[in-house]
Amino acid sequence: MIAEILATGDEIRSGALVDSNSAHIASELEAAGVAVARHLCVGDDLNVLTAALGEIAGRAHAAVVTGGLGPTEDDLTTEAAARAACVSLVLNETALSDVEAFFTSRGLEMGPSNRKQAMLPEGATMIANPVGTAPGFSLEVGDCLFFFVPGVPFEMKRMMADAVLPAIKSRFGKDRETVRVKTLSTFGLPESVTGEKLAGFESAFPGLKLGLRAKFPEIQVKLYGTGRDEAAVGDLLAAAVGWVRERLGDKIFSETGQSMEEAVGDLLRRNGATLAMAESCTGGLIAHKMTNVSGSSDYFLFSAVTYSNEAKMGVLGVSEKTLKQYGAVSEETAREMAVGARQAADATWGIATTGIAGPDGGTPDKPVGTVCIGIAGPDGVKAKRFVLSFPSRRMNKTVFAVTALDGLRRALG
Amino acid sequence: MIAEILATGDEIRSGALVDSNSAHIASELEAAGVAVARHLCVGDDLNVLTAALGEIAGRAHAAVVTGGLGPTEDDLTTEAAARAACVSLVLNETALSDVEAFFTSRGLEMGPSNRKQAMLPEGATMIANPVGTAPGFSLEVGDCLFFFVPGVPFEMKRMMADAVLPAIKSRFGKDRETVRVKTLSTFGLPESVTGEKLAGFESAFPGLKLGLRAKFPEIQVKLYGTGRDEAAVGDLLAAAVGWVRERLGDKIFSETGQSMEEAVGDLLRRNGATLAMAESCTGGLIAHKMTNVSGSSDYFLFSAVTYSNEAKMGVLGVSEKTLKQYGAVSEETAREMAVGARQAADATWGIATTGIAGPDGGTPDKPVGTVCIGIAGPDGVKAKRFVLSFPSRRMNKTVFAVTALDGLRRALG
Repeated sequence: MIAEILATGDEIRSGALVDSNSAHIASELEAAGVAVARHLCVGDDLNVLTAALGEIAGRAHAAVVTGGLGPTEDDLTTEAAARAACVSLVLNETALSDVEAFFTSRGLEMGPSNRKQAMLPEGATMIANPVGTAPGFSLEVGDCLFFFVPGVPFEMKRMMADAVLPAIKSRFGKDRETVRVKTLSTFGLPESVTGEKLAGFESAFPGLKLGLRAKFPEIQVKLYGTGRDEAAVGDLLAAAVGWVRERLGDKIFSETGQSMEEAVGDLLRRNGATLAMAESCTGGLIAHKMTNVSGSSDYFLFSAVTYSNEAKMGVLGVSEKTLKQYGAVSEETAREMAVGARQAADATWGIATTGIAGPDGGTPDKPVGTVCIGIAGPDGVKAKRFVLSFPSRRMNKTVFAVTALDGLRRALG
Repeated sequence: MIAEILATGDEIRSGALVDSNSAHIASELEAAGVAVARHLCVGDDLNVLTAALGEIAGRAHAAVVTGGLGPTEDDLTTEAAARAACVSLVLNETALSDVEAFFTSRGLEMGPSNRKQAMLPEGATMIANPVGTAPGFSLEVGDCLFFFVPGVPFEMKRMMADAVLPAIKSRFGKDRETVRVKTLSTFGLPESVTGEKLAGFESAFPGLKLGLRAKFPEIQVKLYGTGRDEAAVGDLLAAAVGWVRERLGDKIFSETGQSMEEAVGDLLRRNGATLAMAESCTGGLIAHKMTNVSGSSDYFLFSAVTYSNEAKMGVLGVSEKTLKQYGAVSEETAREMAVGARQAADATWGIATTGIAGPDGGTPDKPVGTVCIGIAGPDGVKAKRFVLSFPSRRMNKTVFAVTALDGLRRALG
């Protein structure tokens, strides 16, 4: 069977917005054993949209369309779907009451434009949107089963998981093969070196496919197994994981697709330990990452984001002498910051970052990308200097934050 | 004239990689006055590639194709281009010496597979690649002028700027129109309400186009003007901005496409003011956002991310009595946190967040989404409670953070 993806919207067509939805939908479909032949993107133009749907209907067995289901005048996908199927738009009572309930539960009044969202092509099956106002729908056009979902990524993702993938699996079940993916998350090697260390994989495991995916600053090693015998695919993948583990060792921080902060959080919880931190150049990003994990209040106590030297001294007890003698960006300061954070919050562990995220502030001695990381724990404190320069301030902050968490992971492990 | 974009490669087709090239190419073409009608993506398959090029040649006047120019076996774009144009591949001497020079200058030996990269379709014009091994080329197929560039983003960007855009401008100069976009960033109204408030725009400004873009939790109002008379387009846009301003008022926080943290940072700098904050439920996100802005050390001093009550008392001086009597999530605690952060860092302003980001921790009195925001400044302190519940912890953290910054913006304004 052939599946296609259509992303709609002038924002994507004109390049104002990068289309990340199509990649998500494609990888979900591929993981479900459905090959994606094409992605297409067109703007908010009724005739162009209608023509694109017609073309896809003539080529594909299934298609996922994102965007253009909202309440405003430039949301034209539903009307285009009705035209492509030569049917009219009719009020869907379930869709209307869903939209109403969304507003009522938030104490808001529904505007007249939201009623438009409950008008679906005749013959369409509504797809509930539990996290937004725009319901989706599925509709047959020719021999192709279309799924229409909103363009807002989290709404689209939720509806793909809840409704679209189950419907595709039940409709095209007999044509699919089992596809299993195993993800090993690594940190600390460039993508090219990771690839070189895994050279020979394809000949060692001819039945499997290896993919590297840069999820900055992590590199995910993905192993794909396909076949009709689920148990055999599982055994082959387990052997391949062992093979990869031998070659990448402790660069692998998770074998379940966890983020670094989730992996570190699990280690802290398993050790009954708590964490405090002092962030200068990471500017709160480590705390933000840690507190994105639900339940992190079990082990995360405190972060002091100390940009000014005054805050480093006042809140963390860093000595003025150290700051003067070695500078704010130094192993010595990082050590005192880590100790200070640990003591301020009475935590098992304290970690600290001080460095230069750029683009300004670098010197010949301490260029942009320099970061000193301190880790204080029950057995004392240590600090280390790194130079990790990437093309933007945000990337530098991110790689500094993950390097600090990776240091804590190794100290905990 | 009609332009299209074709992104090639199994990584993009299968969703392993998000295609950010198409957005870059589209926005560059649009800025040059060339309307992009479609983006298409297909995988590394010679027949599919050839067919896609043929389709585009039948529809468009110009097209940019990325990817598949490398040395390996799955790099098939050049061969597909030759087939679509019904010509053979011939060795391009300039391309060969460029590839050789690339290797020589790096002290490397050229592999035999790199010779393949110097084979171009007969009649093609080579496009030099100053930053990589794969030369690009332009080629007429039917009435369409194709530009083939590599898929590596920085090579593609360089060749777009150096060669593709100049060639398109000189070839299609007379057909191009000025395109100008004006972006008004708003916060505080749902997309549907924003759209309703702007109903009537199209009839008031028939020459312009209005688009709303949800960039959670902001809504951007985009005004697009197209025409041959640049000054007239500018005047029309200026009038339209005034019209929108009247309807959205102080929900607009930027008219230059700034993020909330950039807008607040500018206000702080203009006022010669500094900022400290105390974050509970936002977990460092406000500090992370503020410190993403280069130069933020001019006004950002300190954030205390205090998850535990001990840290709220010890670092911020929140009284135990307040925590016991009103609870950690209360206007009273938010007020004391804001004052404490301001005093700890000797800042002009202190802001504080305490709330329940979820998914757990909600109560009937204080459901998930409850947040109390405190703002302390030269004229005293105030606090306000909001209930802003979204489907995920991250979204709640984000909307809490932007609500706090929006409160500071209004206090500063």
